[in-house]
Formats: sequence, structure tokens, C-alpha cells
Amino acid sequence: MRIHYNAIAGQSVERLAALSDGLFAVAMTILVLDLKVPAAEAIHGEAALLDALTALAPRLLVYLMSFLTLGIFWVGQQTQLNHVARGDRYLTWIHLAFLFAVTLMPFSTSLMAEFVALRTALLVYWLNILALGVILYGSWRYAAGAGLVQEGLDETVHRAVRLRIIVAQVLYATGAALCALNTYCSIGFIIVVQLIYVVGPRRGVLARL
Amino acid sequence: MRIHYNAIAGQSVERLAALSDGLFAVAMTILVLDLKVPAAEAIHGEAALLDALTALAPRLLVYLMSFLTLGIFWVGQQTQLNHVARGDRYLTWIHLAFLFAVTLMPFSTSLMAEFVALRTALLVYWLNILALGVILYGSWRYAAGAGLVQEGLDETVHRAVRLRIIVAQVLYATGAALCALNTYCSIGFIIVVQLIYVVGPRRGVLARL
Amino acid sequence: MRIHYNAIAGQSVERLAALSDGLFAVAMTILVLDLKVPAAEAIHGEAALLDALTALAPRLLVYLMSFLTLGIFWVGQQTQLNHVARGDRYLTWIHLAFLFAVTLMPFSTSLMAEFVALRTALLVYWLNILALGVILYGSWRYAAGAGLVQEGLDETVHRAVRLRIIVAQVLYATGAALCALNTYCSIGFIIVVQLIYVVGPRRGVLARL
Amino acid sequence: MRIHYNAIAGQSVERLAALSDGLFAVAMTILVLDLKVPAAEAIHGEAALLDALTALAPRLLVYLMSFLTLGIFWVGQQTQLNHVARGDRYLTWIHLAFLFAVTLMPFSTSLMAEFVALRTALLVYWLNILALGVILYGSWRYAAGAGLVQEGLDETVHRAVRLRIIVAQVLYATGAALCALNTYCSIGFIIVVQLIYVVGPRRGVLARL
Repeated sequence: MRIHYNAIAGQSVERLAALSDGLFAVAMTILVLDLKVPAAEAIHGEAALLDALTALAPRLLVYLMSFLTLGIFWVGQQTQLNHVARGDRYLTWIHLAFLFAVTLMPFSTSLMAEFVALRTALLVYWLNILALGVILYGSWRYAAGAGLVQEGLDETVHRAVRLRIIVAQVLYATGAALCALNTYCSIGFIIVVQLIYVVGPRRGVLARL
Repeated sequence: MRIHYNAIAGQSVERLAALSDGLFAVAMTILVLDLKVPAAEAIHGEAALLDALTALAPRLLVYLMSFLTLGIFWVGQQTQLNHVARGDRYLTWIHLAFLFAVTLMPFSTSLMAEFVALRTALLVYWLNILALGVILYGSWRYAAGAGLVQEGLDETVHRAVRLRIIVAQVLYATGAALCALNTYCSIGFIIVVQLIYVVGPRRGVLARL
Repeated sequence: MRIHYNAIAGQSVERLAALSDGLFAVAMTILVLDLKVPAAEAIHGEAALLDALTALAPRLLVYLMSFLTLGIFWVGQQTQLNHVARGDRYLTWIHLAFLFAVTLMPFSTSLMAEFVALRTALLVYWLNILALGVILYGSWRYAAGAGLVQEGLDETVHRAVRLRIIVAQVLYATGAALCALNTYCSIGFIIVVQLIYVVGPRRGVLARL
Repeated sequence: MRIHYNAIAGQSVERLAALSDGLFAVAMTILVLDLKVPAAEAIHGEAALLDALTALAPRLLVYLMSFLTLGIFWVGQQTQLNHVARGDRYLTWIHLAFLFAVTLMPFSTSLMAEFVALRTALLVYWLNILALGVILYGSWRYAAGAGLVQEGLDETVHRAVRLRIIVAQVLYATGAALCALNTYCSIGFIIVVQLIYVVGPRRGVLARL
């Protein structure tokens, strides 16, 4: 009998998690390198420095937004992998595709920080979020279909995982569509959505999201 | 019955620890990228290089100070997580907020290194340390209140964790207040405080800090 | 009796895996830093930004190709280490050599992105892939010869691991040879090979690769 | 009874190992960022690119040397931690000091690559290696003295760990002293020493090092 390489490759969920943690850690930290310290020659005194820092505020906001995005998707991936009993090469490659989208986040973020008023930049950013959501959704579908999730996992868990991604992506798409008005509306809407997901309200209508 | 996503999200303390280790590792290493090698064109001979390196000494000191800060907070977070039995999504997000403050450290450090005589830079740096302390304090309050810490954990441990953060933050605030005199006093004071925490004296009045 | 240091050094496969995951994570993320956001001064309006982004497309393709390469070799290394029961200093150093070749990947990638039409750049890139393959092949030979692999591992597994590397390297070498025509043929061929390995077809002639 | 914070802080050897792996991974990868791809404007055709790459060769050699240094010390730290049963805050801080020296390595390496003919640069590099060795030696002394190492560890293991560090540091110091002749002698000597440690000959006089 012949064993094919594909049957033995990429089975370690632990190493996939470790690579993901490392990659998220680097992406989250690299984002901030875009916050450049003002050049010393241009700054004379406290007031000038305060002005220069205030001028950095929009970039800090964009950075915060991207950190939230990465945090949300890191939690999302973790939640999935916590319920996966074993991996295979296909699941591994789905997650590598997910990680590829993660590595593009610092670029999309810089782009939006640099061109905050242009729709093109906002749409690129949204496409990045969309890719993250679609791949994560696909990852769960595949893991469930291929019997890789933990035995006896309740259908309600499956439903909760799928529903969260779909609702979130509908909200992000709504936010992106708001750029028909202007890009600041989009950014504001997306940040509000993200803060709701971060805070995770326990009751009221927001708790249903 | 319906399971809500929030009930199953972000439960892995191990992955939170792994993400934190990765993020601290990147932040600690990125700090040093600010130490720029002198340009070859400007250096002619050993004496010139020695001069250029001596001129880098203040930056090295600021870098060392930030490495100590990150080290102290890494130990602090580790100590907390070592006593946490399980996570939930709220604890995870509190720690993601903590990690956000960690990623800002390279920026605050560069800012202070560039504008070592300006109070604005020093206060930004102190606000960063304050944020780290406040979030870490909140994390322990939450974990204790939500029953996430190990069972049977002694009240004296709770007290030790809380007390350490409060005393340290009072000292850091004192250091920051010293910038009323000048920023070098602040930096000197903060470094001394940090060295005490690093050395961890076992007896005498300093052992009570 | 005297114990020599070499007999006790580098025995932890877990730490080797952790270092590898961290290093791959950094290399995969650093690749993308090469995707530079267009300068704001040069861009006036949506159309100009779209043009600038379109101009980045070849770089994105090269980046994708390198991410795939690193992904393929990460899976390859993981698959080997999953079957290794224990390490020794020689195995550790073989993998450190492998990781050295991994760290060169961002350089080779930048080089090819910058000089996409030059054969020299393509051959440097191929030499990098060749080094990764040769070292990984050597690692398995050594682990098998030194009795470090799991007991009772089937000969078919050994064969599958070796065969995969050899077939893949023959294909990469073919791709590199195509630069006799021009470098775009080489890049296209290599990307197709990589996509086949990523998708991992389950039947047909491609499944035999 | 009062528990002091210092008694419960920094006890996880696993997290110390994870932070170290992350930090080494970043430092090893950042080293290579110094290998800059030649500017496209200056290169016209294959021959010019080959020349430019050849001109990078000395930098590649310095980079390789630093990768070997970091690899050697990573193996050294791993070997120690593999024999440590539990940590405490003092051991943690000794290793954080060690990691601080690791983060300086990319700077020392860049400095030496830039000023390869100047003794000052070589001595800074050597001081960095010396610091790594001294702290690692101190770490083992402390761990052994504080009863943190595994029970029943043979005295010959203690001896092997200590001897390795001392012999290596004597050789590195000899290499550094050779810069009295010129820096290339030093670099050549150090690389030979490192290669011996990497290869780890099993017999002959070199096996005793």
C-alpha cells in the first residue's frame, strides 16, 4: 500500500495555532510602526510637539480600528480552533489563506490612514475584512464537513459560529456601503460595530448581534 | 436552547498567553530598531566611531528603560495568567486592550528618545505606563469577580497582586510629576524604581515595595 | 564518567517547533512590508489611487508566491517534526540551517519583485527554494538514520516524505530552467506548481505529485 | 500571614521559553533586513545585478555569523531551561537580561557590517557575545544554587554546561584579541569557532571543545 504525502501533512492544530499567534502578534505590532514620531528638526518646544501629536490622532484612530479588527478575527479563529479536534492539510491551507489576509492588514491600514478621504482606500480595507470573514466561514464549513470538529459538538454551537460571521459581515458591508455618503461615515460605523463586538453587551438588542 | 457566540468565544488562556508572548517579543525587539547605526560616510576612523557610539548612549538608556518596563509588565501579566484557571471573552478583550498599550510602547519610547527634554513626550510615555497598569489591575478585578481564578487561591495572593500594581503606579506617577523640575529627574527616578523591581531586594525597606 | 555538552544540547523538539513557528510568522509578515503604500503627494483622487494600486499588482503576485513557498515549507517541516519523537543537537542545527534559508526568503522575494525581468534575480530565488528543499530532505535522512523518528513508523511514510521533496524540487528546477525563455514563464510555472500543492487534488494525474 | 508579590511572580518556565523563542525568531529575521536589495535605478542588466549581489557578499557573511551566534545561544539557553524544573522571579529577570543582550545583536551586527575594518565595531560585537555568555553562565549558577534545576541532575551535567560556556568565551575573547592584527583575522577566527560548535565534531581534539 502507498501512503500519499497529503494524507500525513499538516495535521497539527497546535502548530497551526502557534503560527497564527506569532503572525497575529507581528501584524498587530507592525501596524503601529506607521505611527511615525515627528522629526525633531520641525519641533521647537512643547506646544509644537503637542500640535504634532494631535495631528497624529486620525492615524491612531485608524490604527486602533485595525487592532480591533485583528483582535476580533484572532478571537474568531481561536474560538473555531478550540472546537477542532484534529487538523488535516486542507484545513491547514484554509487557515494559511486566512493568515495571508491577516498579513495584508497592515498594508490596507496604512493605505486607509494615508488616503482617509478616498473611497478606493476604504473599499480595499473592506475587501480585506471580507476576505477574512469569508475564509473563516469556509474554514468552519470545511472542518464540520470533514469531521474534524470535536465529537458531540452541539448544533447550536455550529449555528452560533456561522451566525456570528454572517451578521458581522453584513454590518461591515453596510459600513462600506456608507462610503457612498463619505468615507468618515463608513469608518465611524465600522468602529461602532467593532466596539459592540469588543464590549459584547450581555442584554438588550445589541446582545443579539 | 440557543447558545450565544459570546458564551463560547475566547476561552483559551494558553492562546492568550502565546499571543502575548509573541507580541511582547516583537515589541521588545522593535524598540531597538530605533538605535540606528551611524552612517558610514560620516565616520572616518576609530575615534569618530567611538564618538558616534557615545552619542547614542542616551538612546540606549531610554531603550533599556522601555525594555525594563515591558519586562515588568510581561512578568506582571504572566503572574496573573498563571493563577487564572480559565478564560472568557471579556478577560480576553481586557488583555487585548493591554496588548494594544504594549504595541504603543515602541512609539512612546521613540518619542521620548527624540524629545528627551520635553515634558509632553515624558507625559505621553507615562500615560502609556499608566494605561498598562490600569488595564492589568482591571484584568485581575474582573478575573477575580467572574470566578476565573484558580480555586482556593488565598486572599493574600489577591492582595499582593493588587498592592504591587498600586504601589508601582504611585511611584511612576511620582516620577512623572518630577518633570515639573525637569524631565531628566523623571527619567532617573523611573529607572531607579524599575531597577528596584527588577532586582527585587529580599530585605530592608525596599523589599516592601 | 564525563558527559559531553553535545550529548545534552538541543533536545527539545517543542522548542524547535516554537522557534520555527515564530520565525515563519515574522518572515511571512515581513514579506508584505515590501508592498509600499503610494506616497500621498503623488495621488490626486480615486482614479490615481486605483492606478497606483494596479501598478502594485505584480508585487502582490510575487508576494503571494513567496507566501505560498513559505507555507509549503512550513507544512513540510511540520509534517516531519510531527513524526519525530525526540531531537538532538545535530537535528537542531539542521533545522537552524533550514530557518536561515527561511530568513533569506524576504530578501530573495524583494530582489525578484524589484528585478522581475532579470534571470539573476530568478535564479537567486530558485537557489533559495533549492536550499530549503535540500536541507529539509537532509533533515529527514538524518532523523531516520539517527533513530529519532517515532517507533514503528511505516516505510511508506518515509517514502512519501522523501518523494514529495524530490518531485517538488524537480518541478521547481524545471520552472527555473524556463527562464531560458523568459522569467515570466518561470514565475507562472512555479505559481502553478505551488497552487497544485496548495489545493492538493485528490484524484487524477495531479494527485500523484 | 502576608505573601509578597515577589514570591509568586514569574514562575512559568514555559512562558519564559515562549517569550525567548519569539524574541530569538524576531532577532534572527530582523538581522536580514540589513541585506538591502540594490536600487533598481542603478542596475541595468544581468551583469550589473550580479556585481551588486557580489558586493553584498561580506554583509551576507556577517549576517550568517550573527545567525550562528544567535543559534548557538538559543541552543545554550534551551539546554539550560530543559534542565530547569521550575522558575522564580530572579531566574526570570536573569533571562530577561539575556534577552536584552539578544535584542542588541541586530544592532551590533549592523555596526560590524557597516564598519568591518574598524576595531571599535568588532569590540562592540564581542562585548555583546561576552554579555550573552556571562549572563547565561550566571543563569545556570543561580538556578543550581537556588535549587531550581531538576532533582537528581548529575554533577557531570553541571560541569558540562559551565565548561562549554567558559571554553567558548575564551575562544571568542581570543578571536576579539586577534583584532590587534586586523579585524578580518578576528572575524575569520570567530566564524571558524562557531562552525566547530555548529558541526559539533564527535571525535578528535575538536570534540573536546
